[in-house]
Amino acid sequence: MRLSRYFLPVLKETPAEAQIASHRLMLRAGMIKQSSAGIYSWLPLGWKVLRRIERIVHEEQQRAGHHPMLMPTLQPADLWRESGRYDAYGPEMLRIRDRQDRDMLYGPTNEEMITDIFRSHVSSYRDLPLTLYHIQWKFRDEMRPRFGVMRGREFLMKDGYNFDLDEAAARHAYNRHLVTYLRTYERLGLQAIPMRADSGPIGGEDTHEFLVLAETGESEVFYDSEITDLRFGDRAIDYDDVAQCQGILEEFTSRYARTDETHDEAVFAQVPEDRRRSARGIEVGQIFYFGTKYSEPMGATVQGPDGKPVPVHMGSHGIGVSRLVGAIIEASHDENGIIWPEGVTPFHAGIVNLKQGDAATDSACEGIYRQLVDAGLEPLYDDRSERAGAKFATMDLIGLPWRITVGPRGLQSGKVELTSRRTGESEEVSPEAAVERVKGVYGVE
Amino acid sequence: MRLSRYFLPVLKETPAEAQIASHRLMLRAGMIKQSSAGIYSWLPLGWKVLRRIERIVHEEQQRAGHHPMLMPTLQPADLWRESGRYDAYGPEMLRIRDRQDRDMLYGPTNEEMITDIFRSHVSSYRDLPLTLYHIQWKFRDEMRPRFGVMRGREFLMKDGYNFDLDEAAARHAYNRHLVTYLRTYERLGLQAIPMRADSGPIGGEDTHEFLVLAETGESEVFYDSEITDLRFGDRAIDYDDVAQCQGILEEFTSRYARTDETHDEAVFAQVPEDRRRSARGIEVGQIFYFGTKYSEPMGATVQGPDGKPVPVHMGSHGIGVSRLVGAIIEASHDENGIIWPEGVTPFHAGIVNLKQGDAATDSACEGIYRQLVDAGLEPLYDDRSERAGAKFATMDLIGLPWRITVGPRGLQSGKVELTSRRTGESEEVSPEAAVERVKGVYGVE
Repeated sequence: MRLSRYFLPVLKETPAEAQIASHRLMLRAGMIKQSSAGIYSWLPLGWKVLRRIERIVHEEQQRAGHHPMLMPTLQPADLWRESGRYDAYGPEMLRIRDRQDRDMLYGPTNEEMITDIFRSHVSSYRDLPLTLYHIQWKFRDEMRPRFGVMRGREFLMKDGYNFDLDEAAARHAYNRHLVTYLRTYERLGLQAIPMRADSGPIGGEDTHEFLVLAETGESEVFYDSEITDLRFGDRAIDYDDVAQCQGILEEFTSRYARTDETHDEAVFAQVPEDRRRSARGIEVGQIFYFGTKYSEPMGATVQGPDGKPVPVHMGSHGIGVSRLVGAIIEASHDENGIIWPEGVTPFHAGIVNLKQGDAATDSACEGIYRQLVDAGLEPLYDDRSERAGAKFATMDLIGLPWRITVGPRGLQSGKVELTSRRTGESEEVSPEAAVERVKGVYGVE
Repeated sequence: MRLSRYFLPVLKETPAEAQIASHRLMLRAGMIKQSSAGIYSWLPLGWKVLRRIERIVHEEQQRAGHHPMLMPTLQPADLWRESGRYDAYGPEMLRIRDRQDRDMLYGPTNEEMITDIFRSHVSSYRDLPLTLYHIQWKFRDEMRPRFGVMRGREFLMKDGYNFDLDEAAARHAYNRHLVTYLRTYERLGLQAIPMRADSGPIGGEDTHEFLVLAETGESEVFYDSEITDLRFGDRAIDYDDVAQCQGILEEFTSRYARTDETHDEAVFAQVPEDRRRSARGIEVGQIFYFGTKYSEPMGATVQGPDGKPVPVHMGSHGIGVSRLVGAIIEASHDENGIIWPEGVTPFHAGIVNLKQGDAATDSACEGIYRQLVDAGLEPLYDDRSERAGAKFATMDLIGLPWRITVGPRGLQSGKVELTSRRTGESEEVSPEAAVERVKGVYGVE
C-alpha cells in the first residue's frame, strides 16, 4: 500500500477521553473511531489487525477439527425463555421489539441458539463429538463503556460450543480448547495465562480464564511465578490424543494462578514466598465445561449406544477478538507508539523514502516495494512529500515491526537502513539484503 | 474434510415453508437454519460459500484501490437526524433504545456514518479521491420476510462509498465501481446485467441495478437481447484510466435494460422487435451517484485547490453478499440439487468411496484426498459407511462441481471415475489423472 493513497488519519493530539495506552494509541494511529458510547468503527488500519487475529483464530480452531459457521446477531427471546436466562440476564442484555411486536435481543452469547441448532439436527451418539464455533459481533449494554475496544458494547467474539456424549468426552473437548487457545495467543505474540475463574452467567462447574498481565488490567490476579516461564512453542499436537491434551492442561494449570474471584489465601500461602506474585490482568478468553445445563432444559439429547436418550455434555469457549487488539497494544507499546508482534501486524514492513522525487531514491523504494509484494507480503510505502521526522513518527506510532529507510546518501554506498521497531536497532544493508531479511522474518520466499 | 467428521445435516424431505428453489436447496443441503422470521444461522457448508463470495468481493474492491474497513451494526439515531432520514425511513428501520434511553438503530445502510467519519478526518482535496467500503450485517425489518436469504431481515451486504472533489471525479468512481461489479459477478459465475433503476431511499440522480435473470426474480425487467452476449472476460483494466472505465460503462449500459420502475415503452419500442425481451430478475447489487445529498447537510467539505470549502461529491455502491448465495443457486441448479460455479463452491471436489473398509479403495481415496489437500484445495471425502446411492445423492444435492468416485472394480484396472456435476458426464481415468484434472480446473499446481 502506498501511504499517499491510503486512509490513515493519524492524530497529533492525544484524545482527552482516552485513559489507557491502547485506547489512546488506537485513536492516534487512525485505527478506530467512536460512533457512540462503546461502539466503534474500525478504520482501514484497525480492520487489518482485526482480520489478522480472526484468521489466526480460524486456523487454530480448524486445526483442532472445530467447524466454523455463523449465527445471526439478533436472537428470538423465546429461546432464552427456554433456558431461563431471558429473565435472569440483567440490563446488559439489549432487548429489542420488532415491528411485529416480537421480543428479540442482540446476542451477548449463543448457548441457547447453538443448542437449538444441535437439537434440530443431531439425534445419534454416532454424530458426536461435535464442536461448532463462530466469530460474530455481540452486544453487551455496559453501563459505563470505557477503555476503547477493551470494554466496548458492540464487540467481536469467537465463541465455540462442544457437544459430547459424556463427561469424559466433554473434558477432552475442554482440554482441546485449552490447547488451541494456548497456541492462538502465542501466535498473536501474547502470553495469556489460564487461571481458575468463576463461571458467572454462563454457569458450569469448571472454567479457566486466559489473562494477559498488564498494569491496566481490570482483574487482580495471583500466581506462581513459575507459570510465566511456560511456553507452548512449536510442539506437535494430536488433538485426538486424550492423554496428550490432558497433559498439557496439567502442565499449564497445575501451578497456582487465580483471579480475585477464586483466590484462596490459604492455598496461595503454600507457594514458596519468592514465587508468589500478584498483578493485574486483562481477560482475553474463557473456557467452560457446564455439562447438561442447557441440553437438559432445552431437550438436546441423542440416542446413546444402548438406544436410550441422553442429554449431551456441553461446554463453551470464547476469545475476545476485538478486545485482543487492545490487549496486544497494552502488552506491546512504548512512548512513541504501538509495537506490533509479527503475527498480527497490519503491514509487514514500512518503507520510508527520505527524498521523494529523487529518481534514484524513488526507484530503490519502488524496487523494494515490488519485491516484498511479489513475495506475498504487504509493505506500507510512505511515498508522501513529508519531512523524514514526520515519516518516522508515523511509522513508530502505527508500530510496524520493520522499517526500511531509503535515502540518497545511503544509496551512494549501496545501502539502506533496516530498523527493528521493538529494539530500535538499525543496520546498514543492501536493498536486496533488507528484502531478504524481512522475507526471512515472515518465512516467505 | 472427511464427511464422517463434518456437520452436514442434509434433509430428506422438502421443507414445506420453502417456496423457491434456492430456499429449498439451502435448507435441504444443510446450509442454513432459520432462527426467527427472516433471520438465519449459516451452518458450516453455507458459511463456506458466504466466505468465498466475501473473499472475491474483497479482492475485486481492493484491486480497484478501495479500502476495506468495518462500521458497527448499531448506529446512533442522531446521525440520521442530521440527514433527515431518521423520520423519513419507514418501519423497515429497526429502532432500538439502549439502557441509557438513547435512540439507536440497526443500520440498514451507512451513508450517514461514513459521511461522519469522512468529515471528522478529511479536510483537504489532496486526500481525495477516497473510497471506503465494508462488508457488514444489516437489518431491514421486512413486513413479510420470505424466500430464505433472498429477502431476509438480517443480511450481509458490501457497501462502499466514494468521496470526490467534483462531479467528474465522482462519475469516474461510479464507472470504476461498475467495472469492479462486472468482474465480481463474473468470478461468481453469474451474469448480472446493469439496468437503469430508481434510486429509492438512498436518493441520487443516477443509479444502476445489477440483475440476474431468473424466473423467481422479484423484479420485472425489459432489455435488448444483445446485452446477454456481453462478457467482461479477462481484459486488463487500469482503474485510474478514466476513458477506459467510461468506455466499459458505455459498452454495458448503452443498450436498453431497465427495471419496471424506469421502463419506458416508447423507448423500448425503438429496439428491434426480435431483440426485445421481458423477464424476471433478482437484484444483486446497485450503484448510486448522489452528489452532495449527504455532504451538504452533514457538512462534509474539503478545502479545494483555491482554498475555499467545497462539499464532496459522493456515491454509494452495494452488493448483497448473503442474497447472492440464493441468487447463484436460483441461476444454477437442477432437480437433484445445487450446481456450484467453481468460483464459489464450498469444496473443490467430492471423493466418493464406494466400499468403505476395503483396503485398496480406502487407500486410493486417502491418496487422492492427500494430493488435493497438498495442492491447496479443499476436497470433501465421503468416508461414511453408506450405500453408493446415498453418497451420490448427497454429492448432487450439495452441488460440488467435480466428483471422483473410487471403487474396487475400477481400481482393478487402475481407474476412478471423474464426473462433472454440471454436465453429468463421467470419464474413467487414473487416480493421478483425476487429481491433475481437478487441479487444472482450479489453476493450482
